[in-house]
Parts: sequence; C-alpha cells; structure tokens
Amino acid sequence: MKAARLYGSQDLRVVDIPEPSVSSHQVKVKVEWAGICGSDLHEFSHGPSADPHPLTGQLPPITLGHEFSGTIVELADDVTNLKVGERVAIEPLIHCGECYACKRGHYNQCSKVGFVGLNRDGGFAEYVVVEEQMVHQLPDNVSFEEGALVEPTAVSFYAVRESQLKPGDSVAIFGAGPIGLLTLLSVKAAGATKIIVVDVSEERLKKAEELGATTTINGMDDNIALTIHELTGGGVSVAYECAGVQPTMTNAVASVKQGGQVMAIAVFAKPVSIDMGQLLFKGADVTSRLAYRHVFPEIIDMISTGRLDVKSVITSNIHIEDIVEEGFNQLFTDKKQAKILVKPYK
Amino acid sequence: MKAARLYGSQDLRVVDIPEPSVSSHQVKVKVEWAGICGSDLHEFSHGPSADPHPLTGQLPPITLGHEFSGTIVELADDVTNLKVGERVAIEPLIHCGECYACKRGHYNQCSKVGFVGLNRDGGFAEYVVVEEQMVHQLPDNVSFEEGALVEPTAVSFYAVRESQLKPGDSVAIFGAGPIGLLTLLSVKAAGATKIIVVDVSEERLKKAEELGATTTINGMDDNIALTIHELTGGGVSVAYECAGVQPTMTNAVASVKQGGQVMAIAVFAKPVSIDMGQLLFKGADVTSRLAYRHVFPEIIDMISTGRLDVKSVITSNIHIEDIVEEGFNQLFTDKKQAKILVKPYK
Repeated sequence: MKAARLYGSQDLRVVDIPEPSVSSHQVKVKVEWAGICGSDLHEFSHGPSADPHPLTGQLPPITLGHEFSGTIVELADDVTNLKVGERVAIEPLIHCGECYACKRGHYNQCSKVGFVGLNRDGGFAEYVVVEEQMVHQLPDNVSFEEGALVEPTAVSFYAVRESQLKPGDSVAIFGAGPIGLLTLLSVKAAGATKIIVVDVSEERLKKAEELGATTTINGMDDNIALTIHELTGGGVSVAYECAGVQPTMTNAVASVKQGGQVMAIAVFAKPVSIDMGQLLFKGADVTSRLAYRHVFPEIIDMISTGRLDVKSVITSNIHIEDIVEEGFNQLFTDKKQAKILVKPYK
Repeated sequence: MKAARLYGSQDLRVVDIPEPSVSSHQVKVKVEWAGICGSDLHEFSHGPSADPHPLTGQLPPITLGHEFSGTIVELADDVTNLKVGERVAIEPLIHCGECYACKRGHYNQCSKVGFVGLNRDGGFAEYVVVEEQMVHQLPDNVSFEEGALVEPTAVSFYAVRESQLKPGDSVAIFGAGPIGLLTLLSVKAAGATKIIVVDVSEERLKKAEELGATTTINGMDDNIALTIHELTGGGVSVAYECAGVQPTMTNAVASVKQGGQVMAIAVFAKPVSIDMGQLLFKGADVTSRLAYRHVFPEIIDMISTGRLDVKSVITSNIHIEDIVEEGFNQLFTDKKQAKILVKPYK
C-alpha cells in the first residue's frame, strides 16, 4: 500500500509498504480522507524524534497523518462492539492508562501522551490499525471529509468547552489558521455574539468573515486591544490564542475584560512574557489545553445536526502522490490554504 | 493630632495636623492599631503619585496606613446603622460604584480603584474618617490588634477562596513575608494538608514552620519544583505566588500538578516569562487577584471562632513617633520582621 512516511527533516517520502495487521483489541481501517495539520508541518520541518516513543517504541520512518476517517475492514477476534463496514472517525491519542492523569480519565494529560500519525504509523496510508476505543462511528449524514475534520475540530471545540465562554459573550480569536477558524465555528455554535478575529493575513481574515467573524482586525494594526475594548464596551470574555507568539499573547491578555480569560490553544515555541499587573487588576486568568478528551461523539453530533459546518475550512483535496508539492509546500507558502485533505488511494 | 504623612520619596514625616471631620455617610474612627504593609514600603521608596487620584482628588502629602482598627467616635447625621463606641475594622477600598465592575459588585476591580491610606488620608493618625460601608464591627473576643490584621488577611484569604483549593489538597507558597504567612494560615483553615513554603530567608522559613508549614524549602536550593513534585507525588493543586519575581513564578508554574493553578497574590514589578508548554501539557492556569471583596465579615468570624490565628504574624508593636526608624527601616532590613503594628496616640 501507499504511505507518506517521514524519514527525517524535510524528508517525506511516498513509499510502498506492507498493509498493517491487527493485534488484540485493534481494528484495521481503510482510510478515506486524512487532513494535514500544523503539527505535521512542524514534524516535517524539524524531523521526527530519534528516540523511540515510550508507549509505541516506533523509530523513524513514521507514517504521518492523525486527522482521518475511513471504513473498518477487519477486526481482531476480541473486538465485539464494532463491525466491518462501519464508517468511522479516529481519535488518535495514545495514552498509558496508568498515570495520575489517565486514572482520572484525563488521558490528554497522560505523562507519556502520543499520537497515531506522529509517534506511530498514521493515516497518510491506505490502511491503518488503531485500538478499538479510538474509533467513533459516523452517522450517514456525516461525510468522510467531515469525519477527517473531527480531530482538528476537537482541539478547538474542547478548548472552547473548557473556557469560561457563556452564550451571549464576546470573544477574540488571535490567528485565523485552521485551528483559529475551527475555534470561530465552535464559539459561534456555543452562542458567542461578537466574534473578533485577528490575523496578519488579509486572505485568512476574508475566510474568517465568510465563516462568521463579526469583525476582523489586521494583526499589524496599532492599538488592537484598544479597538477590541471599544468594540465590546470593555473587553472580551475570552481571548483564544491560536497563533502562539508574543505579540498575539500580549494582545490577548490586553483584550480581555474584568474577570476575563485567555485560553491558549496554540503551541508556543518559546516562553512568553506576561504582564501580571493586567491579570491582577482584571482578576483575569491565562490557561491552555492540550488536544481533547471525551468530545468526539459530541462533535460528530454537532456536525450531524448542522451546528458545526466544519467542511467550510477545507480549501483543497489532493492525492497522496502529491502530498509534498500540493500539500505541505502549499501550506507553507499559500496563506489562502486552510485545511488540505489527502486521499491515500486511487 | 499626630499623623505619619508621605511628602515624597523617602520623606515620611510625623506631623501635627487638625482632626478630620465627617461628611455625609461618614464616620470618624479613633485608630487603635495600624499595620505597615509592603505597599506602604513601596510608596515610601517611590513616593506618592504627583497626580490627584480620580476619586479622592488628594495630592501629597498623604497620611499612609490602610490596615487599621479602632473605635467609632462620631457619626454623620445620616448614618443610622452604626453607633459611637463600636469597635471596628476598616475596609479601605475606594471605588466609583458606577463602572462595569462596580455594577456587578466587583468593587476591587473598579477602574478607578484606590485605598484610604494610599490615595486619601489613612490610618497612621489618631483619627480618620471613612464611609459607613467601609466599617466592619469586631466582636468582643477579637482584639484591636487582630482587627488591624483583617485587611492584610483579606488579601490572602480572598485569593485562597478564589483559588481552586479543595480540602485535602497540597499547596506551595512562594514567599514567606506577611502575605505569604497569612496565605499559609488561610490554606490551613481551608483544609490544605501538605503546605510547602519557599523563601530565601531561613528566618522567615522558621516563622512559617511555627505557623504550620509542613515543609519549608530554601529558595536558593536547586530543583525546587522537583522536590515539590516528589513531596506531593506529582505536584501541588495550587501554588500561591507571594513574592512577585521571575524565579518564584517559574518555580510556581513548574510545581503545580496536572490541572493545577498558580494564584499570583504578589504585585509584579515587571512582566514575567511563562513557559506556556507547561500550562498546555498540564492544562494548568495562571491567575491573579487584586485585594478583596465581600470577605471582611467572614474573616472576622474566622478570627472570632479561632480558625485564623492572625496575631501570630505580629512581630513588633511600636508608637507612631518611631514609625520610620522602628517601622519602615526595620522592615527594609530585618527579615525576622513580619507585621509591625503602629499605635497612633500616647
């Protein structure tokens, strides 16, 4: 079968490898669509870890792809609650099940947390094997394309659920990449009224307006926080930080109202400087969430009932043979691109 | 009457001034004890603001002192729910009553917030006038000394109430000055089990042990966060930041467990650097609170019923004539000093 495997930094190859086979409590899934994520770009740029992951033990090359949907084609003998032919979205989180966090069901905070598609062979391949508990059924009216978007939506949707947002609140979203756009869809579904989106790319802001941003602000503008305070009569309830750099964090902290919250969804490459005096005077807080837990069924319901139009973030559908040129390279260079989905078979 | 008034940086003078007189809705209090606060030291070092406060309009000199107790000696004609002779503690917060925060009862977040004793003549004087709603009665078994400690206790107690601490939790307290020690008393009263206190002064750590710290760690030690993780089996539920500098904040963030919280009580002179990756992987949050709201009666009850032994933080009682030498200068130089109380009359 075809698989897009990362051998080292900048070295992603589409190669033929044997189909994987199921072990106990696993299912084999024929992949229909797999999305390219910012963390795939990060792995591509920096190369996979040379150390084996503590739970998977896998060394490079690793088949990338952790946002995917498909059809169950084979079950291990001990899998009894799933059927061959079922259409599914995959929750790719790998956890130990034994640590402080796992014992409390907080598997996204597992001390050894990993991902299928980053730490073990993933979804940029015709077939993948996953543990049965990673599999979430898709109703008939949720397409495979939408199914591939459940994972990135989960990152945003979980952060929104964990934030202090209440219906009727105003929010600001810093960064209008795929996670920023999915955050926009999530806060809209959660009842946010004023939704202010900030990005340095006018193309991305245009997309944000299409998806429901009530105001967009160019990230190069002066006095962004002041503008947000004026628009909202004193600041937003929650600022979602989906960019992960100092200027956006500074503006996020400055944009929240009394008792407001900064929810950081982005991964920050470096420590950021925070003016604690602003948190003090506002009684505000800064927090962050990694990935998601216990939300895939809810998101699939939201898509199925028309509350989350996740397919609106898809900007391109490509074939696995073209994954480097038309996938990764496009995402590095073309700010009009948001989510690119990959079909792993002809 | 005698009053200790700040004329400029390092220029605190004990002078004779006329007794103040009450206006509408005010009471006149004869001060029994007034504590010296870290913010008094800050004002002393940096000098009072040259601009008039937006609510009080007062310009220097300003009589310092915002932690005080005393006896009501006079009432304005329109004050009907208080009596001359009542023993009281004063809540010195000044607020506008009209802004977003005030309308919600969040008067500590008032956009024009100020303090009697920092922005208007305060308690280092034989008499002071305050608004009737600032006055909280003391039961007979709460001494005037304890009454003077209600205000600094409120800073710590409010932050503890606003934190996510639950009975049985482990905590770390960074900084064992008066606020750190009052935080220690507050978390003990709230049911914290392991109470780890970190400070660079062995003398302060000794005091913390006397007050109930279960472990003390010298702030110059290596691997403070690692030690805390080992002591608690994975980190504390809440780290209280009562020092306000980069190393303590770094250790506070590193010391909290999965889902933990850093509650900053200190005022930070400079922005601090925070490793957002730690907040991300732990789902932890950083927050802060200014002063207090709606907690003076509860604290007076806690003292009255023996749950908060606030007088244990008093290290010295002095007379107003000696306030610079035996008060401010002692606090600047002698780490054994915690709370010094000032008697404003012979």
